[in-house]
Amino acid sequence: MVRSAAVLIREHGLAPTGMREIAAAADAPRGSLQHYFPDGKDQVVSEALDWVAGQVTRPLLPDGTDRPQPARKVVADMFARFRRILELTDFAAGCAIVATVADASANDRLRAKSAEAFGAWRAALTDVLRRGGAGKARAERLAVTAIAALEGALVLARADRDLAAFDAVAKEITALMPR
Amino acid sequence: MVRSAAVLIREHGLAPTGMREIAAAADAPRGSLQHYFPDGKDQVVSEALDWVAGQVTRPLLPDGTDRPQPARKVVADMFARFRRILELTDFAAGCAIVATVADASANDRLRAKSAEAFGAWRAALTDVLRRGGAGKARAERLAVTAIAALEGALVLARADRDLAAFDAVAKEITALMPR
Repeated sequence: MVRSAAVLIREHGLAPTGMREIAAAADAPRGSLQHYFPDGKDQVVSEALDWVAGQVTRPLLPDGTDRPQPARKVVADMFARFRRILELTDFAAGCAIVATVADASANDRLRAKSAEAFGAWRAALTDVLRRGGAGKARAERLAVTAIAALEGALVLARADRDLAAFDAVAKEITALMPR
Repeated sequence: MVRSAAVLIREHGLAPTGMREIAAAADAPRGSLQHYFPDGKDQVVSEALDWVAGQVTRPLLPDGTDRPQPARKVVADMFARFRRILELTDFAAGCAIVATVADASANDRLRAKSAEAFGAWRAALTDVLRRGGAGKARAERLAVTAIAALEGALVLARADRDLAAFDAVAKEITALMPR
């Protein structure tokens, strides 16, 4: 159900995604959605943002070897994963965190949860850059720049229904990362 | 009315912005909104996106002198203008084009209009970079990267209700531009 919520939000936006749509997409009775999420839509969306944060940070965690992963490759892979989602969904899917921020100006709980999801992502990518030898301030700046540029590139790709802008951003931002 | 629509969309999102809200924000009777925009919400939003495109491209047009403006300064100013909007609106306002793309997956007219607005902005910034001496392919890549990163930075700032991430992105992206 949480995954269905994330997919609906990244494709249609936060506002148009209601409990009815989430239940239908999860193929679950409306009553069971209400049973698991007594606080309603805000609760499902909060957990969906946690799920998204897990999806984006997991590939950035240490791989268990002693060798640090080169930041440039990690960021190229990050762009490649979202590129595949654009292709697989025919440009329907953006990022659920961006969609939440766009519609949730009056909802401080979801706004804060979006910040938390971005924060986890930024921390994981900052760690990659730090393990690769970048200083703390520079690692933080590069991490947030890569994530911001990726988010913007997703929006441009969905507007254009074309990958040219996305690929151009991926190329410039990847080149900006240390090897 | 068009300006009111753009402001509502960038603050609250596309889906939550209806004809009723636009008329109220413009302090206009609902009937006059329907008179000027017989096609309804899609028409107001299309014209709002044209208005936004004008707002973002105007500062990038040649300033009438023979001296090309340095791309680095132009991009720094672009970030600074949006930074002021974040400050003036207490982080309520993002970008109306991003908000439209996030909610308009099923609306091809607004999707295409968003692409047109981004296209005008990209073309104007590409011209700045070309006039400064950048080659065509590189100028196009840098322009789209600066715009994507700015859009992502706006989303991060609104999520955080804080300018640190925005300023970090501005610093890295500005440094990436030719002097």
